[in-house]
Amino acid sequence: MSQLLRVQNFVVSEDGFGAGEGQTLERPFGNADPAAMMSWAGATASWPNRVDPGGTRGLDDYFTRDFRNNIGAEIMGRNKFGPIRGDWIDHDWKGWWGEDPPFRTPVFVLTHFPRPSFTLSDTTFHFVNGEPSQVLQQAKDAADGKDVRLGGGVMTVRQFLEADLVDTLHVVVAPVTIDKGERLWDGPEDLTDRYHLDSVPSPSGVTHLLFWRR
Amino acid sequence: MSQLLRVQNFVVSEDGFGAGEGQTLERPFGNADPAAMMSWAGATASWPNRVDPGGTRGLDDYFTRDFRNNIGAEIMGRNKFGPIRGDWIDHDWKGWWGEDPPFRTPVFVLTHFPRPSFTLSDTTFHFVNGEPSQVLQQAKDAADGKDVRLGGGVMTVRQFLEADLVDTLHVVVAPVTIDKGERLWDGPEDLTDRYHLDSVPSPSGVTHLLFWRR
Repeated sequence: MSQLLRVQNFVVSEDGFGAGEGQTLERPFGNADPAAMMSWAGATASWPNRVDPGGTRGLDDYFTRDFRNNIGAEIMGRNKFGPIRGDWIDHDWKGWWGEDPPFRTPVFVLTHFPRPSFTLSDTTFHFVNGEPSQVLQQAKDAADGKDVRLGGGVMTVRQFLEADLVDTLHVVVAPVTIDKGERLWDGPEDLTDRYHLDSVPSPSGVTHLLFWRR
Repeated sequence: MSQLLRVQNFVVSEDGFGAGEGQTLERPFGNADPAAMMSWAGATASWPNRVDPGGTRGLDDYFTRDFRNNIGAEIMGRNKFGPIRGDWIDHDWKGWWGEDPPFRTPVFVLTHFPRPSFTLSDTTFHFVNGEPSQVLQQAKDAADGKDVRLGGGVMTVRQFLEADLVDTLHVVVAPVTIDKGERLWDGPEDLTDRYHLDSVPSPSGVTHLLFWRR
């Protein structure tokens, strides 16, 4: 079985934005409301950040439950890793996820600025500079035969789509508009020349878009 | 995290039958057409019995992909295990699945007739007699902290539902009628007093019904 590059649980607004403008430490989604984007996931039993028991086990839960299923590594852009831009001022910032990040695999952070690798619990972050195809090869080598998750943000997903390296995409359309910020697409039809598409409305109000290669 | 008892990828006809009459070696679903019941699953990339590469990676694939996800044991009725009824004539019959069964965990087969355990590849079949709650405890003990799949057939699912031991059910309604045989229910509303329900039509023509406890 070949290793896939998979986008999973990637949330955009109805007008195609993955994050708003003005990302800061306090506002990882910029001017976009994080609750409006993520409440569908936070309600599920398998949401990786859940601390209390309970949660729904319907359609949305199949998607949060699949987050680590056969995934051996993640690639993310540095704008997903944190709000710092340019050179690393110090190495105190270790991501949004606290002492036990939900990835539990090697994570490759794309950046032009070198930084040593570090480990938090079961997750090791590596900082890499290279063409998408090179970084993907590094991640596949580290994934122990499993698939690689492409974690975002928007510019990273676009970059790998342009290089035609993405095998499957699960994009969640949340019932909000953002108007400005980082835009994934004009609409899902941007991709249907290259991908099959299942469009699945959820009782929670979001729509799950599932793309796989033609 | 507590261990769940999960029904998964359990297919019934529009009129609620899981299998027709007259199960034989050649016809595991009796008079029901196996293709009409299972083609939605066979088309997916993650179908456990797939031998060639390819297959769809849309909505239906999330369900076949979840087949082994966090499952540590299966419980099945002897009518799922095979067409033999009554005492075991010999021990030549080893299930429908050939030398490499898709389960890859301990499997507990409910039967009043004793038979020694045996192993095929990564799957060990045990033959057990007992109340549903006792068998469930045996399966949980064997599942290494993971969930237990309740594999069917119809009478086994009904028996565990009556004992109120089932935590989640994924029932697939195929666009066929069978008219007679083993019936799971009059309709999904039989369960909605005890379970939440997401009803999700698939582009393939089946409807996925997802139940979880209230």
